[in-house]
Amino acid sequence: MGRQQRVAILGATGAVGMELLKLLEERRFPVAELKLLASPRSAGTHLTFKGERIPVEPVAEASFRGLDLVLASAGASVSKTWAKTIVEAGAVLIDNSSAFRLDPDVPLVVPEVNPQEAFRHQGILANPNCTTILMCVAIYPLHRHIPLRRVVAATYQSASGAGARAMVELEEQTRAYLQGQPLQPQVFPYPIAFNLFLHNSPLQENGYCQEEMKMVNESRKIMGSPHLRLTATCVRVPVLRTHAEALNLEFEQPFPVEQARQILAQAPGVVLIEDWERNRFPMPIDVAGKDEVAVGRLRQDISEPKALELWLCGDQIRKGAALNAIQIAELLLNGVPTPGSCEISSSTAGSR
Amino acid sequence: MGRQQRVAILGATGAVGMELLKLLEERRFPVAELKLLASPRSAGTHLTFKGERIPVEPVAEASFRGLDLVLASAGASVSKTWAKTIVEAGAVLIDNSSAFRLDPDVPLVVPEVNPQEAFRHQGILANPNCTTILMCVAIYPLHRHIPLRRVVAATYQSASGAGARAMVELEEQTRAYLQGQPLQPQVFPYPIAFNLFLHNSPLQENGYCQEEMKMVNESRKIMGSPHLRLTATCVRVPVLRTHAEALNLEFEQPFPVEQARQILAQAPGVVLIEDWERNRFPMPIDVAGKDEVAVGRLRQDISEPKALELWLCGDQIRKGAALNAIQIAELLLNGVPTPGSCEISSSTAGSR
Repeated sequence: MGRQQRVAILGATGAVGMELLKLLEERRFPVAELKLLASPRSAGTHLTFKGERIPVEPVAEASFRGLDLVLASAGASVSKTWAKTIVEAGAVLIDNSSAFRLDPDVPLVVPEVNPQEAFRHQGILANPNCTTILMCVAIYPLHRHIPLRRVVAATYQSASGAGARAMVELEEQTRAYLQGQPLQPQVFPYPIAFNLFLHNSPLQENGYCQEEMKMVNESRKIMGSPHLRLTATCVRVPVLRTHAEALNLEFEQPFPVEQARQILAQAPGVVLIEDWERNRFPMPIDVAGKDEVAVGRLRQDISEPKALELWLCGDQIRKGAALNAIQIAELLLNGVPTPGSCEISSSTAGSR
Repeated sequence: MGRQQRVAILGATGAVGMELLKLLEERRFPVAELKLLASPRSAGTHLTFKGERIPVEPVAEASFRGLDLVLASAGASVSKTWAKTIVEAGAVLIDNSSAFRLDPDVPLVVPEVNPQEAFRHQGILANPNCTTILMCVAIYPLHRHIPLRRVVAATYQSASGAGARAMVELEEQTRAYLQGQPLQPQVFPYPIAFNLFLHNSPLQENGYCQEEMKMVNESRKIMGSPHLRLTATCVRVPVLRTHAEALNLEFEQPFPVEQARQILAQAPGVVLIEDWERNRFPMPIDVAGKDEVAVGRLRQDISEPKALELWLCGDQIRKGAALNAIQIAELLLNGVPTPGSCEISSSTAGSR
């Protein structure tokens, strides 16, 4: 790997921040120096990196001096506040927030899809929305073969997408429910224990919520298809970690399902989990903590000759956020795409 | 209401059987005599009806003599075993299993959709699949106005769809998980606590599971549209009771969304839950134990000018099973459709 990097994680105490820390160690990212930054409220604690306790410092003007790389995951307003300072300090910002994703001057990168984009950055690169990353990893290899005409998506999004506190809320609220002592929601607007609801990001004038429009706008930018037709219904479900998606994919021409299966079996960052005999396809528990997007039950849509359907699960904190950001950093250092490294046992029995 | 009925519930100790018992009392169904029947394994207990303890008897050849109505919810093989005996005894069988649903001689009825069908029965009427009932109640009023061309459905199905034991398994497995003592699945093939999976009914040769093909075939029969194009992805989620569905509805012509909203606001068995200002749409906890199918976030599909999208939640045990069966019985007695009677507080603020 390339030269040693002086790295900061901004938002180090969040769910994605903690995963970034873990992945820097796990993937042996060449860290010369590591700075952990958070809001004054979250600062003061210590986190461990390669056996060493590192203090979490409050972010300040001087925090970024002498750094090469800042991995930010502290929300859009924090990223907007510090981006200029970071770039002026000479560091590259890989930003996990939505702040710059649709900025034409900022590359929006999924290394398995558009690695070449990363190299046109001007100091800032954006890490896409989690649901969008997982979808693009799975559909881009097909889209490159036969162009997509239209996507109809429905998502099953875990609590982790709303952060570490949301995961705690799901556990605590569920425990309380089982003890007959309902807990008031704090993080989510509505009860999540044994319940579900449409994604609660702000609604746009067109009736779609922000999360859904991220899937539309970001996937267009990532896949370089500005006119791709896509509609998504995003739903929060009582799962701790790992999103799932049901995708209906209409192509410009009929796409033989076996050909699509061969393409996905070899696609970077994808693992096929398809055991037709046992009716066994991807589940959240298969991929929690794993790198790959698990795809399965690929089939011909019986309602439309030009459409295929597939089901996917992916770890939202990992490939949906932290891993993708680290892979972008690795790409900048190494100049080649770096697909996920963890292995998932997969089977492709049956022949549908 | 019509003349007093001598009624039996076959499968009285199951989740749907218990709900049938509750609804007969709640809706003041004219019960002259009530017999509770179950397998020898489940018989021997007592259940309460209008304050009276009634024994659960093992089902036998002689069980059906002198009855007017048998409400069966004990699975397809039990229904197939006893149907002839029931009809020959002169009783009408309203069957909640899949045994006779696609039999051309057996009406498959959702009272809000095809009440007239009920009256051509020859002793047996079939109660449709739960997910299908909920969908048809919501989409038929629109389909009648402008014909549907194609439906793309994704479901979020609760544990109750797999019966009372599955609900207990979800609770117990979740409790064990939270105590760090994972429990082996017994009812479901895979863990359901904080997890989800594609519906585990047997896969067909075409790559669709039985549950999905029920939605296709039964909705065609119920809505009298044998060529309706429909594809569904059915998913089991860790919710105790109440199914949800994300529906993409493509019509033969563009369907103005406000017109669709007006139609649904007046549709029998439907309640609109749409608070656009508060981003508040149907959730399972809204409709658990309620009669109506809650519909919300009706919107123009941004990917297809002729498509609308909607989201629905409905109590799978109630309207998805027991209530619909009782409504069929009421229809036979009264000759008119009987929409749900419970009220859900609804709001239709905003104007999208």
